[in-house]
Amino acid sequence: MMLKVPDHQVAGHRQARDGKPSPLIDDAGRFYKPLQDDDRGSKEVAFYSSFSSNTRVPDHVRRLFPVFHGTQLIEASDGSGLRPHLVLEDVVSSRSHPSVMDIKIGSRTWYPEASEDYIQRCFKKDRETSSLSLGFRISGLQIYGNEESRLWKPENKLVQNLSAADVKVVLKKFVSSNFPDDPNSDPDCSFAASVYGGSTGILAQLLELKAWFEDQTMYHLNSCSVLMVYEKEKVLKGERSDAEAKLIDFAHVTEGKGIIDHNFLGGLCSVIKFISEILTSPDECTTKVCLQDSDKNTNDSENCTTEGL
Amino acid sequence: MMLKVPDHQVAGHRQARDGKPSPLIDDAGRFYKPLQDDDRGSKEVAFYSSFSSNTRVPDHVRRLFPVFHGTQLIEASDGSGLRPHLVLEDVVSSRSHPSVMDIKIGSRTWYPEASEDYIQRCFKKDRETSSLSLGFRISGLQIYGNEESRLWKPENKLVQNLSAADVKVVLKKFVSSNFPDDPNSDPDCSFAASVYGGSTGILAQLLELKAWFEDQTMYHLNSCSVLMVYEKEKVLKGERSDAEAKLIDFAHVTEGKGIIDHNFLGGLCSVIKFISEILTSPDECTTKVCLQDSDKNTNDSENCTTEGL
Repeated sequence: MMLKVPDHQVAGHRQARDGKPSPLIDDAGRFYKPLQDDDRGSKEVAFYSSFSSNTRVPDHVRRLFPVFHGTQLIEASDGSGLRPHLVLEDVVSSRSHPSVMDIKIGSRTWYPEASEDYIQRCFKKDRETSSLSLGFRISGLQIYGNEESRLWKPENKLVQNLSAADVKVVLKKFVSSNFPDDPNSDPDCSFAASVYGGSTGILAQLLELKAWFEDQTMYHLNSCSVLMVYEKEKVLKGERSDAEAKLIDFAHVTEGKGIIDHNFLGGLCSVIKFISEILTSPDECTTKVCLQDSDKNTNDSENCTTEGL
Repeated sequence: MMLKVPDHQVAGHRQARDGKPSPLIDDAGRFYKPLQDDDRGSKEVAFYSSFSSNTRVPDHVRRLFPVFHGTQLIEASDGSGLRPHLVLEDVVSSRSHPSVMDIKIGSRTWYPEASEDYIQRCFKKDRETSSLSLGFRISGLQIYGNEESRLWKPENKLVQNLSAADVKVVLKKFVSSNFPDDPNSDPDCSFAASVYGGSTGILAQLLELKAWFEDQTMYHLNSCSVLMVYEKEKVLKGERSDAEAKLIDFAHVTEGKGIIDHNFLGGLCSVIKFISEILTSPDECTTKVCLQDSDKNTNDSENCTTEGL
């Protein structure tokens, strides 16, 4: 089995750093995620085991989660020896030029059962990023331009605390044909209908997820992300879009105990609202969005740029 | 104009205490709420003024808010002299024997624009009550029994931190014909269909509210309550139920700035889920609810009583 480090990880904490091994992929579409040493690793295994064998999860919801292939002891990417890995469906790297956005859902990433130290750290970060105001934060993204070699991958710190107007611009850039890091061009949203829209598009997938969260009281998906992925090349060639939404990162899942996950649901509805607005008003100019969204105390025209992006 | 102190206030902070004057009512169905001295009073006036003149609010949503009749200088209930009052539709006291429940919506009652002191106090209270876990807390309630003179009005402190199982019991008692403070009788839910159900029942009203919150980005209703009111006598006599849901308490409303109120929406969806379950499984016995909802570490049968209620 040939394993390699994947090219397309967009959220910081999933990459190798702080001496931790990075995930690995094989050429058969599997993603190997090293189990974290603390109880996060075992919690994530526990969630995947429970979820994959839970007959109450309908098929149209199950396909919004990566397929789980169990755990496996393999050599860690940093050469530190054999280590247990989660074996999952590789959502991203099986595509050649995937545009990817990782959106961490929820205005609150902590949960009552966590340690006070963890709660305070999350509480601080939620207030420092857009999580508190928007109900989600963009944890990372990469967008391919029209030419294969060009990739826009802003630093994660730059996208975690965007205003409503700037999040809308980024969500538009994600589905635009003009090159995303050009500050002089407004995103044209020319792929919005095929990526976000339609009966199999990302919005339809998120709405199925929403309907399930309005009802299910089994799991609370604290600090989970929705990953949106698609291959721009396909859309450019006029092929059917392969756009997918997938939930990832389950190290902090807790039992629902008969209560819906109102924190995840609220944040998901906020993402849905942003994407819906792009679909219903694709021609809306950036300035108009800013006039509507900007704070009264700031200058509207200044607010219309996505500074630093 | 004859004014009197209303009989049926259920949420603590709306009653006279700490030397503050209480609200007043007249016999023409109006409710006079003294403006609070700090900026909460002016904030609530600002919200009612904005909302009542906002042509983007559809009629079916507007009727879920008390009608606003402006402000008026009247003698305060505590004889402290003339004082400005909000003049509102009297939702509760115009009924002779109203059963009332005040549910404060949202897992978070604070908001970023508030002072750090206020944030920390709310944060603490949200964690100490059911707000954090359930996405709402019962702020107060009164339920009339079958005989006119009997009223069950538990102390507010006893209902603010209920478990999921106990909230369900209280929501069942609210629509049951057997007397609510009898610990030996399971609530029979005999009024569930006429109060919660049907095309004009409370669930239908909450679902209309939910649809609006999925879309509107004008207001964030921090620390607001949904008041559920109905007259049990009417249902007992076989008359059409007058059940109503009304939003109240807008002293902490902030501008939406293009973002949905995901905190309110999440909490509202949680209330809706509880009420839906009562409607879809009215015959479900208390024990069964407890087995499903109880924490693994507690004894199921113990958990099936609503101790102290």
